[in-house]
Amino acid sequence: MADFTFLNIKADHFIAECKAAIGEAYVLTEASAKARFEHDFWNQYQGMALAVLRPDSVQEVSTVVQLAVKHGISLVPQAGNTGLVNGGIPDQSGVQCVLSVERLNTIRHVDPAGDFMVVEAGCILDHLRNVAAEHNRLFPLAMGSSGSSRIGGNIATNAGGLNVLRYGMMRDLVLGLEVVLPNGEILDCLKPLRKDNTGYDLKQLFIGSEGTLGVITAAALRLVAAPRERVTVWLSIQTPEQAVVLFKKFRDEFGELISAFELLGSDGVEIAIQGLQNLLRPVSEEAPWHLLVEVAWTFHEGLRSKVETVLETILGEHLCTDGAIAESEAQRAMMWRIREGQSESASKLGYILRSDVAVAIANVPALLNWLETWKVKLTPRNIRVLPFGHVGDGNLHVNFLIAKNQFANLHDELLDTLHDEVARLDGSVSAEHGVGREKLKAVTQRKSATELTLSRNLKVLLDPQSIFNPGVILENHKAKS
Amino acid sequence: MADFTFLNIKADHFIAECKAAIGEAYVLTEASAKARFEHDFWNQYQGMALAVLRPDSVQEVSTVVQLAVKHGISLVPQAGNTGLVNGGIPDQSGVQCVLSVERLNTIRHVDPAGDFMVVEAGCILDHLRNVAAEHNRLFPLAMGSSGSSRIGGNIATNAGGLNVLRYGMMRDLVLGLEVVLPNGEILDCLKPLRKDNTGYDLKQLFIGSEGTLGVITAAALRLVAAPRERVTVWLSIQTPEQAVVLFKKFRDEFGELISAFELLGSDGVEIAIQGLQNLLRPVSEEAPWHLLVEVAWTFHEGLRSKVETVLETILGEHLCTDGAIAESEAQRAMMWRIREGQSESASKLGYILRSDVAVAIANVPALLNWLETWKVKLTPRNIRVLPFGHVGDGNLHVNFLIAKNQFANLHDELLDTLHDEVARLDGSVSAEHGVGREKLKAVTQRKSATELTLSRNLKVLLDPQSIFNPGVILENHKAKS
Repeated sequence: MADFTFLNIKADHFIAECKAAIGEAYVLTEASAKARFEHDFWNQYQGMALAVLRPDSVQEVSTVVQLAVKHGISLVPQAGNTGLVNGGIPDQSGVQCVLSVERLNTIRHVDPAGDFMVVEAGCILDHLRNVAAEHNRLFPLAMGSSGSSRIGGNIATNAGGLNVLRYGMMRDLVLGLEVVLPNGEILDCLKPLRKDNTGYDLKQLFIGSEGTLGVITAAALRLVAAPRERVTVWLSIQTPEQAVVLFKKFRDEFGELISAFELLGSDGVEIAIQGLQNLLRPVSEEAPWHLLVEVAWTFHEGLRSKVETVLETILGEHLCTDGAIAESEAQRAMMWRIREGQSESASKLGYILRSDVAVAIANVPALLNWLETWKVKLTPRNIRVLPFGHVGDGNLHVNFLIAKNQFANLHDELLDTLHDEVARLDGSVSAEHGVGREKLKAVTQRKSATELTLSRNLKVLLDPQSIFNPGVILENHKAKS
Repeated sequence: MADFTFLNIKADHFIAECKAAIGEAYVLTEASAKARFEHDFWNQYQGMALAVLRPDSVQEVSTVVQLAVKHGISLVPQAGNTGLVNGGIPDQSGVQCVLSVERLNTIRHVDPAGDFMVVEAGCILDHLRNVAAEHNRLFPLAMGSSGSSRIGGNIATNAGGLNVLRYGMMRDLVLGLEVVLPNGEILDCLKPLRKDNTGYDLKQLFIGSEGTLGVITAAALRLVAAPRERVTVWLSIQTPEQAVVLFKKFRDEFGELISAFELLGSDGVEIAIQGLQNLLRPVSEEAPWHLLVEVAWTFHEGLRSKVETVLETILGEHLCTDGAIAESEAQRAMMWRIREGQSESASKLGYILRSDVAVAIANVPALLNWLETWKVKLTPRNIRVLPFGHVGDGNLHVNFLIAKNQFANLHDELLDTLHDEVARLDGSVSAEHGVGREKLKAVTQRKSATELTLSRNLKVLLDPQSIFNPGVILENHKAKS
């Protein structure tokens, strides 16, 4: 009880001082106001925040952090709250505060000739993509949540998505960062330079560190020239091996012009088509596997005929059994809706247990064939296995569709089995979603002692008081000491 | 004297134990054997090594590092010794040992379908490029020193070069790393995955850290599909402003297919043509500035006609005054020889003081026009200013051609003046060469206290005894304490 009382006093002082610093309206303590910041997008995890803090500038963020240090209050940085590993939501203790960067949403500068823009952490991804497009530039990060995810979170989680194959992960798109450190200092590494070898590249520490080492307040982002012609293709194939062979064919022919190379399992496709509005299968027959391939270039025309030539060749070589080229933007949108809507449609049939693994491309068939064997054992237990993903990056999402009341029972069994196989293939148990709270055990138990020690030492160096997002990525070192 | 004797005993024990561990033949202590490891490529800096250690495996590297820790001996990791900032050469104290990775030169694995290769740190860059080419793949890092620079050094310095515009810096080409830490532990982050968000991306710490935080022993490198058609163009322009306008034109038209966009000043071009064998100016008339532009794609043909169309347009718009397309591989090689041979040719006329700065592309004309104004004051003093560089990245090398006996006098004056102007334009005083010993003062005096403190703390965290490359990137913290 003593501790609890003490916390209340600390907390009360902290909240009062935050209100004075950033305005009463921006320190949320009412349950209804806090609610949307406390649970994940899929409503699978519920945390509880002491308060939600909504500063509107890097200076205000710095002030809030200094107050947190002074009073020993933990902060959970949050941007668009679209993460999939519960890394941006408070735990259930009720003593952590959400530090939302939503209100830092200014685009500070756009330089299309220099291929960069400087933006604040709360800008919504689609907004940035639209602004870039107005300048005939593309900001390449693309994913299902782009309508609500915010760039600060994209950077803090080193987001991946649909076009990594061509443009890289979020890390590859960051030229500069502005970060508030756990001691409240502002680290300005915001120069928009492609080349700047003046010592340790400090910004790299914060990209993908999920708000555990600092809070990102602004970034200089790389832009690329906007493509003018885009060709989207749907292919039916029989085996995962064909996916790898076709990837190499497309790579040899189109090189870096391939912006997406997605694999979809038959079950997931049928569930999407049946469960969502106005969707047709792009090819007439069902097939065990489908590929969704997109190539694009800056020229106005000529790419489609190159794609047609390749399609004729691979059909002739029996590397695919059917194929369709999107004839309109509507057809293209439908192909992508099938790809992107799989989880939404499946979630109407039960509860989805998500995963996010990667292996070297050569190992993709081994993983998928192992999955088929495993599926035979899972089907009688009413567990459906729905694999799909960014096969060009070796990144697969295996969704398990289960009964809702089976979640607690099956969570560890299914994920541990999958992760063990991925580890055996020298892969990653978190390819693009990050660690958060959800993957902490799965990740740390597969890291070497050398990696874990160095990671913990970095956390203690940057954040000795464990102010930022304790319990995310690594166990809370303060709690353990 | 006491200290000196103590050092000798320590040093003797260290050397004896190294000989026992990696073989007497691989611990060089004779002056003649050590010589090539002790000076830079341009023979402008001379250090002195206690010994040169040449282990041939990651285990041997680990053993040597453990012995260095035990005896308190500093190690200077060295790969191809082609660096330009004296970061891979020992200082003049005679107490540091060179740790050469030349003998770790195995290509462990090539996977063309997966677009990666796993190689050891001592592999020569051109060798890796050739092996990739045999598999119809390109390893994109390209620079003048590729015949002798080694990949471990390329990674440790985050090398840039000619094709950054298209493929990024060395950092963007590293999928995985194997590193021996300053305590002798082996850190294995060698997974060849494009996507792996399982916590802090530890390998980023070592890329560009110039051997101060650990020694890189192997890497998983990203490959791309090899281009089949390449078009190389030489353009004559009148002003730096035109270079920026043309860059945007080419970017809008060709997007990521631009692999090089180089700017050359008239003086440098004329010096190269006059000083080197068998070179002709690709266009008939002298011009104040020239551009060397290269575009490439994976298709067999069709790109040249697109380039010709753009050339007609920009000639019509008077954005350039003359232009030539390389008609053969020999003509292309000649254009590149002019670009690459400028320093070599200029060094026959005197002493070259090098620089390596970057600004946002929009600021390139401001920097070059300022340089022209300054040149008027320098010419009467027999100082020639020869700017050239990777203008598409905003990266310029300004060579100063001076009399040899003026080096000590002019070094600080010229570089400080240039660097101050670059800083005023919010640029970088070391774009791709790194810090080493040469740029330590220029870099650190322009960093914020927050950046410097965090950088020093990282160094102390990883290398508390300052075993690795003390005095490079940061002042030697051991020496100061």
